[in-house]
Amino acid sequence: MEMDTIAAISTPMGEGAIAIVRISGPEAVKAANQIFKGKNIEKVESHTIHYGFIVDPEVNEKVEEVMLSVLRAPKTFTREDIVEINCHGGLVSVNRVLQLVLNQGVRLAEPGEFTKRAFLNGRIDLSQAEAVMDLIRAKTDRAMNVAIGQMEGRLSKLVRQLRQTILETLAHVEVNIDYPEYDDVEEMTHRLLLEKATEIKAEIAKLLETSKQGKILRDGISTVIIGRPNVGKSSLLNSLVHENKAIVTDIPGTTRDVIEEYVNVRGVPLRLVDTAGIRETEDIVERIGVERSRQVLKEADLILLVLNNAEPLTAEDKKLFEAARGMDVIVLVNKTDLNRKIDMDEVKKLADNYPVISTSLKEESGIDQLEEAISGLFFTGRIESGDMTYVSNTRHIALLNQAQKAIDDVLSGIDAGVPIDLIQIDFTRTWEILGEIIGDTVHESLINQLFSQFCLGK
Amino acid sequence: MEMDTIAAISTPMGEGAIAIVRISGPEAVKAANQIFKGKNIEKVESHTIHYGFIVDPEVNEKVEEVMLSVLRAPKTFTREDIVEINCHGGLVSVNRVLQLVLNQGVRLAEPGEFTKRAFLNGRIDLSQAEAVMDLIRAKTDRAMNVAIGQMEGRLSKLVRQLRQTILETLAHVEVNIDYPEYDDVEEMTHRLLLEKATEIKAEIAKLLETSKQGKILRDGISTVIIGRPNVGKSSLLNSLVHENKAIVTDIPGTTRDVIEEYVNVRGVPLRLVDTAGIRETEDIVERIGVERSRQVLKEADLILLVLNNAEPLTAEDKKLFEAARGMDVIVLVNKTDLNRKIDMDEVKKLADNYPVISTSLKEESGIDQLEEAISGLFFTGRIESGDMTYVSNTRHIALLNQAQKAIDDVLSGIDAGVPIDLIQIDFTRTWEILGEIIGDTVHESLINQLFSQFCLGK
Repeated sequence: MEMDTIAAISTPMGEGAIAIVRISGPEAVKAANQIFKGKNIEKVESHTIHYGFIVDPEVNEKVEEVMLSVLRAPKTFTREDIVEINCHGGLVSVNRVLQLVLNQGVRLAEPGEFTKRAFLNGRIDLSQAEAVMDLIRAKTDRAMNVAIGQMEGRLSKLVRQLRQTILETLAHVEVNIDYPEYDDVEEMTHRLLLEKATEIKAEIAKLLETSKQGKILRDGISTVIIGRPNVGKSSLLNSLVHENKAIVTDIPGTTRDVIEEYVNVRGVPLRLVDTAGIRETEDIVERIGVERSRQVLKEADLILLVLNNAEPLTAEDKKLFEAARGMDVIVLVNKTDLNRKIDMDEVKKLADNYPVISTSLKEESGIDQLEEAISGLFFTGRIESGDMTYVSNTRHIALLNQAQKAIDDVLSGIDAGVPIDLIQIDFTRTWEILGEIIGDTVHESLINQLFSQFCLGK
Repeated sequence: MEMDTIAAISTPMGEGAIAIVRISGPEAVKAANQIFKGKNIEKVESHTIHYGFIVDPEVNEKVEEVMLSVLRAPKTFTREDIVEINCHGGLVSVNRVLQLVLNQGVRLAEPGEFTKRAFLNGRIDLSQAEAVMDLIRAKTDRAMNVAIGQMEGRLSKLVRQLRQTILETLAHVEVNIDYPEYDDVEEMTHRLLLEKATEIKAEIAKLLETSKQGKILRDGISTVIIGRPNVGKSSLLNSLVHENKAIVTDIPGTTRDVIEEYVNVRGVPLRLVDTAGIRETEDIVERIGVERSRQVLKEADLILLVLNNAEPLTAEDKKLFEAARGMDVIVLVNKTDLNRKIDMDEVKKLADNYPVISTSLKEESGIDQLEEAISGLFFTGRIESGDMTYVSNTRHIALLNQAQKAIDDVLSGIDAGVPIDLIQIDFTRTWEILGEIIGDTVHESLINQLFSQFCLGK
């Protein structure tokens, strides 16, 4: 595939020690050579680093002191020639270096275009490319492990095996149909299809089982703290943030500037509804009524319902339970340092099967149990294994669900004695849907849309 | 000098395409090799790049897919062995890679410690080290050129020449004193000292002449917009920002989180007092009186005083002129799209020798002339030359002023017929002061303090 040469700044915007301009494409080395003073980098070995200056050839003025890396295709990120210009991390200077590169007939890369080329040039498949971005955005070590596993191609390998099984089965069926001289061909074919479809269904179900945890590791648990005024909501937020250094991510360049705050609770990223939001929940139930507030709370994955140990339960507390019904809730009875006035039997009755944790945020007690409960709620009984393949990407989950429906059609077709050629169609459809995960059968527009969500310079 | 091995994240914090962990010191390659899976990098050539994975050796788990650069001393930034680990720019993963490096007995680098080592190991002198930071913080191309020149050692070269002249003169004087058998020795020595001291004084004065511009290019022109309510102050701010894409710099990690906004006006960085501040100046004169507001305005390098063309001059306008007296002021008569009611003769009389520019910010006219005036005010008649050496650093300027005073002592000593050995002391002092600029004669505590202002990983 013949491509043009692209360039972008590949380090985050901001003052830092190092900023990198990355160039990829057939003209990468030539273009860099035109503005590099030090040696002729068109003649150097691949995977080597060279000291020199970037000069503005028009005015013959030194613009930056750089280390320049030359990486020749195919052993590169994009499988194309790559030059990385390692500058002293100034915003103005790195922008000027980029401008000089672009002046040599190089085009500014779109977001994610380097990774897109790695995909288009066959170095990685689509799910691996998506994992690159997941790795960058990972909020915890465990999320990172999921991404690294996917980047290495673990999910791809499983999906490829499923598709291979489908292809082989279809081929086998084809052969059976071509040799209908045997008596039991029809029964054999049905039996084969039933066996293989059941096998595939089980495999997909196994993958989907990991998706709740996978998605949580990738996207975090959206958490809302609710409670009457003065029960300790802000203290709870502060304790969580204090104990687990908050990760605030700022994602510039996307259409909306999102600022999200995460705390890492035993490897599980808790996405805290912004403090302003929490302050507002104080009277959310009173203000908008139980029904409306249920709608609002529904968007959360987890509700931390805070009660006051030193006061009897109130009608407002009960309304909060009502508003949170049917959701994942952890009940905190806070202020255990004060005399108990709350009726714990009533609390336990209201809490039903929700965990109830006693805390004194003031005295910093109970936070451990809370973290235990949070972790337990989402990763119950699961033995953690570094080798586990989690499905974490919403797109993959949706496709696996579609594939499961298609395989269900296959199974009910077999059950209903539907003609083999119709069953073949559903089976082929399953194969196609699974192919979309790894990008084998996928529209260009979807590819463009996926990569446009990447960051610049990646 | 035997040093330990240090490491830090050298790219700005934030999600990006690339994040780099830099390791420097005698154990850099060995430490990196212990967590790198791909090949034995202790055996590779210097200045080469290697693909592989960073693994957590304790759990044998892949943590990141990386490109690893091996740079062997002495041809490196620090003159020590350097390894750069080029990761997929995720915050969590790059932090984990750093942690693994630190687990190998490597110490976390202090801010600026890599550059400090480049200085301590004799690769660059102090003024060149300071230029590295100036380059990173440069707000415009011209500021960058100043920094690049200084980084290349232009200022150092001039300072070294001055010091060399002083040393040679002192040696010459010493010889004369040792051979007092000639009659005219005393007169000859005085003449020599006078000639050389005058020469050095002129050179220092020439350098100091560039300092106003140098400082402006480096630090920007601190600019305040004043005017009565509704004359167009916000429009002016918006026009400047709109025409010249604002550079907002956020300097985290320093004691105070400073957010400054710059606009690049023909290569001159204008540092705009934050919008909140500008809103407050509306009634600053009324509120705090002329004298107090003069104090406030004094901190600015430039005042843009905005008048309303469609209204007669008021007492408030006159108070603004009074408050700004003695400063660099540009007067804008705005709203020229409306009928003139202002008395221009009176404006010109009040403005005295300040430039007066007519603008209609609404119709976007006059901005060009304003920019011309700003540039002219600070760079009058100066032919711009890429080869010009600007002194831009406050520390350097202060030292040059001290050196000038010391050389004045030399000159007045000669004039007053002070004994040669006393004059020698002042001359030696000049030599020492100049040495502080390049770090030849400087206290360790100052060095530590200077480098601590650098960014992490540099």
